[in-house]
Amino acid sequence: MSDAVGILAIVGLGLIGGSLARALRERGAVQRVIGCGYREPSLRRGLELGVIDEFTLDLDEALDRADTLVLCTPTLTASDVLEKILPRLSGGAGPLVTDVASVKGSLYRTAVAAAGVMPPRLVLGHPIAGSERSGVDASRADLFVNHRVILTPVEDNDPDAVARVRAMWELTGAEVVEMSVAQHDAVLAATSHLPHVLAYALVDALAAAPDSDEVFRCAAGGFRDFTRIASSDPVMWRDIALANREALLGAIDRFADHLQQLRDAVDAGDAEGMHETFTRAKNARDAFADILADREKG
Amino acid sequence: MSDAVGILAIVGLGLIGGSLARALRERGAVQRVIGCGYREPSLRRGLELGVIDEFTLDLDEALDRADTLVLCTPTLTASDVLEKILPRLSGGAGPLVTDVASVKGSLYRTAVAAAGVMPPRLVLGHPIAGSERSGVDASRADLFVNHRVILTPVEDNDPDAVARVRAMWELTGAEVVEMSVAQHDAVLAATSHLPHVLAYALVDALAAAPDSDEVFRCAAGGFRDFTRIASSDPVMWRDIALANREALLGAIDRFADHLQQLRDAVDAGDAEGMHETFTRAKNARDAFADILADREKG
Repeated sequence: MSDAVGILAIVGLGLIGGSLARALRERGAVQRVIGCGYREPSLRRGLELGVIDEFTLDLDEALDRADTLVLCTPTLTASDVLEKILPRLSGGAGPLVTDVASVKGSLYRTAVAAAGVMPPRLVLGHPIAGSERSGVDASRADLFVNHRVILTPVEDNDPDAVARVRAMWELTGAEVVEMSVAQHDAVLAATSHLPHVLAYALVDALAAAPDSDEVFRCAAGGFRDFTRIASSDPVMWRDIALANREALLGAIDRFADHLQQLRDAVDAGDAEGMHETFTRAKNARDAFADILADREKG
Repeated sequence: MSDAVGILAIVGLGLIGGSLARALRERGAVQRVIGCGYREPSLRRGLELGVIDEFTLDLDEALDRADTLVLCTPTLTASDVLEKILPRLSGGAGPLVTDVASVKGSLYRTAVAAAGVMPPRLVLGHPIAGSERSGVDASRADLFVNHRVILTPVEDNDPDAVARVRAMWELTGAEVVEMSVAQHDAVLAATSHLPHVLAYALVDALAAAPDSDEVFRCAAGGFRDFTRIASSDPVMWRDIALANREALLGAIDRFADHLQQLRDAVDAGDAEGMHETFTRAKNARDAFADILADREKG
């Protein structure tokens, strides 16, 4: 089993990278884990926790030694790191490389702009898993169990490289699916990036009211759940919005159309129209809750 | 203590009415509780559970015998019931009457349209408490503890009646505040009715996509929390949207302006603008979470 991943380099040791290392270790699927990054304290912490075996601040060293390298930095940093390592990956050279960033189009464009084609052993991916907590201290071996990992292979990719990245994620207990770069970015814009923008916009609209203190004091549990994601990291979400600009604009516009239709129904006192929309949405939401419940049963 | 509320009639015995009866019983603040409604099964169930002492399907009987009558039916039904009982309340006649509906303006207009003025002993109110569960089986004596109850007294109200309704809610452990009818409806539109409309609109927009199954399968925990309220009862929310039309339209429009500003920032790649908005929203949301945490500590 230890040949599956070989020597694993995790670039950016936080919740996701740490959890991947823990999961693969637990399955005996790695020979050795090298942490790599520019923040020595989290790397030292990873060593203390036994998540990694050693660390380096030198990206070239990680590239030289790793069989598999996973970019686990935030979205925009992943583009920067990718630019640095691309020259080492051309023509199928270097280790197997994948990533975990929330947007795939920006990385794909970075790769193709710099290298002309997608390096055959660079397979872009995205585990749909997270936690309110962040950092290597929050990492857990079971973070990906029954969660989806989306891979977005392209024609230039080596099928063996895609199969290896898939096998790595399957070892963590994840369900691996493939889609196109554009489909991934559209789906994530709709289910994740747009809801964050809506939650931020709602809380900001309320906070702008002259009596905002009183307004928040009258809010209840439904509001708490609805706005929880507005407590997310502003830098991370600014970067995701920058990286997934086009798909996010499309999702905002489709949502704004639906909101306008509902507004018209409210304005017209169209009881039947509202009831239809609310019922359709409730049925879809209840079906989604069933999917999640099944996933949690495993 | 048993003089505080006297004989209590609960019209519409569900989660809220049942919880009010339980809370006041537990404090020894009621002489007797009469359940009233047109659905005999839930009244029988209330009797079995010991939430009420007796029931009647005859509203006039409840009016004749009660010292305090609380309308606990859904929003639009409350208007209908109010119309029926208004002739009995003119000039300060009849029992002390209050309600729990989510919208106050529609009831106020009903009262004034029928009676010319607000009956002095009809004091409108709204406890900001609820649960995913509904019905008298879900009722609990502590439902209102540390929750807000908003009263919306008007000039025509008898100050003694307002004080009595306040005292009744304080006995349940609630924090009672007063605001105008218009302010209540604007605050609830912003913190509750608008979020429900947004959640319904989002889920409906996603469900309309050709690949909606796949889309929902890629959604994660943030989406679950954000859309939980889209599983709410479509009839109840249709009625609230009808009853609070004007305030809800205002809230939708203010939100749409904020969303448009954020859309412009995404479109322009305005990193600073997005970061500012997201940070302002995160700070407001974190402060709100602190308010809720304090409330839960009691």
